[in-house]
Amino acid sequence: MTAVLSTASDYEALLRDYDTWLFDCDGVLWRGDHLLDGAVEVLDLLRRRNKKVVFVTNNATKSRRSYKSKFDDLGVEAHVDEIYGSAYAAAVYISSVIKLPKTKKVYVIGMAGLEEELQNEGITILGGTDPADNTLESFNLADFVRDPDVGAVVCGLDTKINYTKLSKAFQYLLHNQDCLFIATNEDSTYPSSHGLLPGAGSISAPLRCALGKNPICTGKPASTMLDCIKAKVNFDPKRTIMVGDRLNTDILFGQNGGLATLLVLTGITKVTDIQGPNASPIVPDFVTEALGDFRVVEKAA
Amino acid sequence: MTAVLSTASDYEALLRDYDTWLFDCDGVLWRGDHLLDGAVEVLDLLRRRNKKVVFVTNNATKSRRSYKSKFDDLGVEAHVDEIYGSAYAAAVYISSVIKLPKTKKVYVIGMAGLEEELQNEGITILGGTDPADNTLESFNLADFVRDPDVGAVVCGLDTKINYTKLSKAFQYLLHNQDCLFIATNEDSTYPSSHGLLPGAGSISAPLRCALGKNPICTGKPASTMLDCIKAKVNFDPKRTIMVGDRLNTDILFGQNGGLATLLVLTGITKVTDIQGPNASPIVPDFVTEALGDFRVVEKAA
Repeated sequence: MTAVLSTASDYEALLRDYDTWLFDCDGVLWRGDHLLDGAVEVLDLLRRRNKKVVFVTNNATKSRRSYKSKFDDLGVEAHVDEIYGSAYAAAVYISSVIKLPKTKKVYVIGMAGLEEELQNEGITILGGTDPADNTLESFNLADFVRDPDVGAVVCGLDTKINYTKLSKAFQYLLHNQDCLFIATNEDSTYPSSHGLLPGAGSISAPLRCALGKNPICTGKPASTMLDCIKAKVNFDPKRTIMVGDRLNTDILFGQNGGLATLLVLTGITKVTDIQGPNASPIVPDFVTEALGDFRVVEKAA
Repeated sequence: MTAVLSTASDYEALLRDYDTWLFDCDGVLWRGDHLLDGAVEVLDLLRRRNKKVVFVTNNATKSRRSYKSKFDDLGVEAHVDEIYGSAYAAAVYISSVIKLPKTKKVYVIGMAGLEEELQNEGITILGGTDPADNTLESFNLADFVRDPDVGAVVCGLDTKINYTKLSKAFQYLLHNQDCLFIATNEDSTYPSSHGLLPGAGSISAPLRCALGKNPICTGKPASTMLDCIKAKVNFDPKRTIMVGDRLNTDILFGQNGGLATLLVLTGITKVTDIQGPNASPIVPDFVTEALGDFRVVEKAA
């Protein structure tokens, strides 16, 4: 059963019970390039009460460093070491979890932010933003020589997706059973400022279809992302809450990690997704209309 | 139980029992640009015995007219009215089955052959080979004005696939519940002369993922293709056999239409796919190594 937060004491109870607050960003703090009302004030309130604040995003087009500039542009206080992205999680997964040998390379479907995170972890990359692979010229399989050192394909949101990149990634995965198939995240859509667009899950969909298998996913709701956070941040899961706008990524991510979960309705999820005959089986612990609702605590004080 | 053809009398029995022979092309008559041994002789044998010969292809990149030039180039006798392609089936489905009003338009993800078949049926198209949509420039949703007359999106194999085409098709389908989502075929891979590449099913996969729904499919194994053939060719299903190399398209297509089915092993399907512990639940009536095996009939005569 989801508890609907409404009175000042409801919000105070959450502030009392949880020390570490994990936030999804898009749909919680902002929507596209539009800051949501009250988000900055509530983050300030949490910091004043000595809460640990962590931002957990599936956005894989930006590195943490460049993602921080989005916070700066919107006037939201954040520090690079508070930001965990699915591109970073993919890089850490490859370098530290599966420990891909340094002689191996990774073929990238994705953008500069994903490349930056992989390279920061010392990983050699192919594809990605390489102009040779960012083309609509015909792909000729006869002319393609597979690099024998490619040990993984990593796929994230790539707005320069094309048949050459898909074909090369497919060849690496088809002809080498040991080549890992990794996706930064599986969000089927991406909420831009002006509406929904195909997301990272839609970009990896051709490979999933052609190969008949699913990638290892490093973003929410996969536990890989939480493993990355755990490696850097000391927190008690019992006193930690995940705040997000998507049931099948944010809320499931929190539940998978044994955290409390708070759904906000300023993003993807509508009230009919959690109540009534078409309600999702994923049930958050708490729900509130918007993060800004926590301001009631200050008014009540 | 599949009957394995081996003796001259096995092959003679099929020639006696079936008057109409439907053929898949790639993997049966040729592989990529390489004609398969004996295919021409066996087609000649069938024609000499007054068999009706029909070619049924899921290739949606070519119109029937341009697909005929492939037969010509490889020295295989064929006539345009013997050729049924999934692009043609999509066009006939739109013009004659759902009868999309002539004032409506179709947004195309696909190549010139699909456009040609749609236009031959009097359908107005957008997208496709339009240079404006064949770009890797950033797609800006704020600048995109949906054409209110678009009543369907048709998706086929498109080697110029890109984020602009995917995003436009997604907008039409997302914002208009009446807009039809049609795919020429769902083959996950495409057998080129030099190996497998992502197929039409992989090109529509991003839309299936982003929308969370599947398209209406006009190619094999869907019955739409057989409906097109029935509208033009007079045949008795009981005396008709479908010859193909893929269980989940060709053989299933024949079975869905109440036809006999003959699997050849010169294409996608391996013997382990029909025998042993990993055998498919789709069981052809007959199997032979290659179409050329029918030549034993002439040697025996």
